[in-house]
Amino acid sequence: MGPSMRRNRYAPRILFPVLLLAFLPGIAHAAGADPSLPLLRYLVVILVSAKLAGHAAVRLGQPAVLGELIAGIVLGNLALLGIGGLEGMETDPYVDILSRLGVIVLLFGVGLESTIRDILDVGISSLLVAVLGVAVPFGLGWMVGIWLLPDSSSFVHAFLGATLCATSVGITARVLQDVGRSRGKEARIILGAAVIDDILGLIILASVSGVIAAAASGVKMGVGPQLWIALQAFGFLAGALILGTFLTPRIFSTGARLRGSGVLLGISLGFCFLLSWLSGLAGLAPIVGAFAAGLILEPVHFRQYGSRGIEELEEKLRPLSDFLAPVFFVLMGSKVDVRALASPEAMALALALTVAAVAGKQACSLGIVDRGVNRWAVGFGMIPRGEVGLIFASIGAGLTFGGTPVIGPVTYSAVVLMVMITTLVTPPLLKWSLSGEEPTPP
Amino acid sequence: MGPSMRRNRYAPRILFPVLLLAFLPGIAHAAGADPSLPLLRYLVVILVSAKLAGHAAVRLGQPAVLGELIAGIVLGNLALLGIGGLEGMETDPYVDILSRLGVIVLLFGVGLESTIRDILDVGISSLLVAVLGVAVPFGLGWMVGIWLLPDSSSFVHAFLGATLCATSVGITARVLQDVGRSRGKEARIILGAAVIDDILGLIILASVSGVIAAAASGVKMGVGPQLWIALQAFGFLAGALILGTFLTPRIFSTGARLRGSGVLLGISLGFCFLLSWLSGLAGLAPIVGAFAAGLILEPVHFRQYGSRGIEELEEKLRPLSDFLAPVFFVLMGSKVDVRALASPEAMALALALTVAAVAGKQACSLGIVDRGVNRWAVGFGMIPRGEVGLIFASIGAGLTFGGTPVIGPVTYSAVVLMVMITTLVTPPLLKWSLSGEEPTPP
Repeated sequence: MGPSMRRNRYAPRILFPVLLLAFLPGIAHAAGADPSLPLLRYLVVILVSAKLAGHAAVRLGQPAVLGELIAGIVLGNLALLGIGGLEGMETDPYVDILSRLGVIVLLFGVGLESTIRDILDVGISSLLVAVLGVAVPFGLGWMVGIWLLPDSSSFVHAFLGATLCATSVGITARVLQDVGRSRGKEARIILGAAVIDDILGLIILASVSGVIAAAASGVKMGVGPQLWIALQAFGFLAGALILGTFLTPRIFSTGARLRGSGVLLGISLGFCFLLSWLSGLAGLAPIVGAFAAGLILEPVHFRQYGSRGIEELEEKLRPLSDFLAPVFFVLMGSKVDVRALASPEAMALALALTVAAVAGKQACSLGIVDRGVNRWAVGFGMIPRGEVGLIFASIGAGLTFGGTPVIGPVTYSAVVLMVMITTLVTPPLLKWSLSGEEPTPP
Repeated sequence: MGPSMRRNRYAPRILFPVLLLAFLPGIAHAAGADPSLPLLRYLVVILVSAKLAGHAAVRLGQPAVLGELIAGIVLGNLALLGIGGLEGMETDPYVDILSRLGVIVLLFGVGLESTIRDILDVGISSLLVAVLGVAVPFGLGWMVGIWLLPDSSSFVHAFLGATLCATSVGITARVLQDVGRSRGKEARIILGAAVIDDILGLIILASVSGVIAAAASGVKMGVGPQLWIALQAFGFLAGALILGTFLTPRIFSTGARLRGSGVLLGISLGFCFLLSWLSGLAGLAPIVGAFAAGLILEPVHFRQYGSRGIEELEEKLRPLSDFLAPVFFVLMGSKVDVRALASPEAMALALALTVAAVAGKQACSLGIVDRGVNRWAVGFGMIPRGEVGLIFASIGAGLTFGGTPVIGPVTYSAVVLMVMITTLVTPPLLKWSLSGEEPTPP
């Protein structure tokens, strides 16, 4: 029995209640009595459709996040088919705030997977791959902006470049594992580069959005002030990392002595939200602080929480992420306007961005100094933009300059399409580049 | 070294950043740029103070929730000491919605701990204890209302009665465990009665709030219509339980075949939110549906999720509860107006309600038909009102009739004080009633 047949057999059973929920919002007199009711309805639709679409994506060898994004695009454009009931979801403030918490928890988790030591220990090849893999796509993205959006300000062009910087290597790691190469040199270079990439990407995002926010509030522009703002962003990240490294052992050894349920999770989330808030106060995106919080926390801080330590924290964060991250991805998908995407401009922009994204990451392979490394595999492995590209696009959609959003509906839809295509093309390209090679010994 | 000395030694270290956060809200130009910033600040203060105060309560042999409540009262009344910065917390819509989700997740978890079979299997003593333990406090609370709030409508009096119905046996279970009697007859009767109590309490809450909502929207009152609304509430719960029992095995066996991360949690939360939403549509509090959802889910539905099944779900819900439930309890505490509480009316009301709560539960022991049972221990064990009483009070504060809230500031503060006192007096009374008895064999 093929995967699609099995899926079809039971999907309708679980789809029925979702459809009922989506299309019968007006059955009650009391709706609105409790302010949580609309949110509860949206959450049911989001959770069930995210899990169903995520399943379908996984069955097709794609990451679940791709399914969640497509579920969001479908839900957000149901009105075009004359199906009402979910129009309020995109603009619901509570769905929005849950999706923001979802991204913060997600980036905290990503940060937890690396430590500051991992970054200092990364090899020279990884470092060069990361720097080239951020700089070249940034430049290419900027150029695509100048070429296809000539009437927009340089801020828009710079922001387009920023959305091309980040790499999301989850899908690459999965494919390498599938073909038995997860312990090869290529995998080590890619994963090392991904850690640096995340940081460089966040610094670029922080600098670009800092410059835009400053310009919007009337600060005079020029190379000097812009460089100063970029330095501030870098300074916050560095300062948070240094201060955090000194303060964290104290906070967490104190926390270890507290009794009660969920102390480890509570103190860790408090720390993550604190840095997210400080990051926001510094004019940066809160995710920068969340990522820094995760980076600061190292296994040694959790010695006193028993033998499992940081793994226990990661395990307890996962349910929060499993609940809140789909809210973000479905919401991001729902904001894609299919009509805007159908325009020739959007298609051209999406195509050009995708080419820039793919070509930009191929330049990475020039940074490999080790011998005997499959350069194509490294270049292809760095292609997927995934969640980080989306997060950048959503931040751009929230920034305004001269009264219009930096990332408007057409640009936003094109970026989402670029993220989806880069994710879709990676597994076949990576498998092709590695075909005929022996699996590395475990 | 005594517990208080040890606490003092390290509390300031972790308190410093909390104070900094609370009192320096205006340091940045960019605050408000990201809509999540105020929420992030409140969450840091809530999580850190909840875990610190919860720890202090546990050290003093009290449940953590009592500490969280006191932390909330302190945070909510800091402005009286001239300390600003947290005034917005009580009315922040995002804090409010997270606390609502917290209660829904909490009640879902409470429901998961029992199954419909547990309820059908409960002994005759437990059943009688539960019925008397709900009916007598309900009547006494109503009478206290008539006596001390003669100018209020009967709705207020009925609601006061409803807040006295529920039992929160967590603290009792803990004390029985400490004195080695957790497997005695008393423990079995109390825990059985608590399950029935939760359901009867929710039915009373649903009926009373349904009647009030109907009256507020202009429905003619009388014994007939009121009975009809109460029947509707009961009908919803019964209908949800019956329909859920038939549909759930299908939904969850379908869910078991889905791939991807967090499917079990996602589908379960979706189910919980669905019933909460339906419950809200039916004019009931969403927690009624959340509790029903937990009650419906039985270990057998999780067979296909591996050997651990429902325990895995409970384990994955716990981090959600550990994050969101303190938001509810701290927020509930922060809504207590210390000035309102200091008035003679509020003190008299709190005292009278506490006496009614304690005396009402002593009547339970008349329902015990088994021999050789320590009736005092059962009566004392049923005293704590805990979180359910608070949830009822918060629902009453949200209901309006004739333009004023059913539970106004003075009544609300008195109910919170009653909940705190009943929780505080239980351990010593219970230990005293059991002193001199042999521990039951394990």
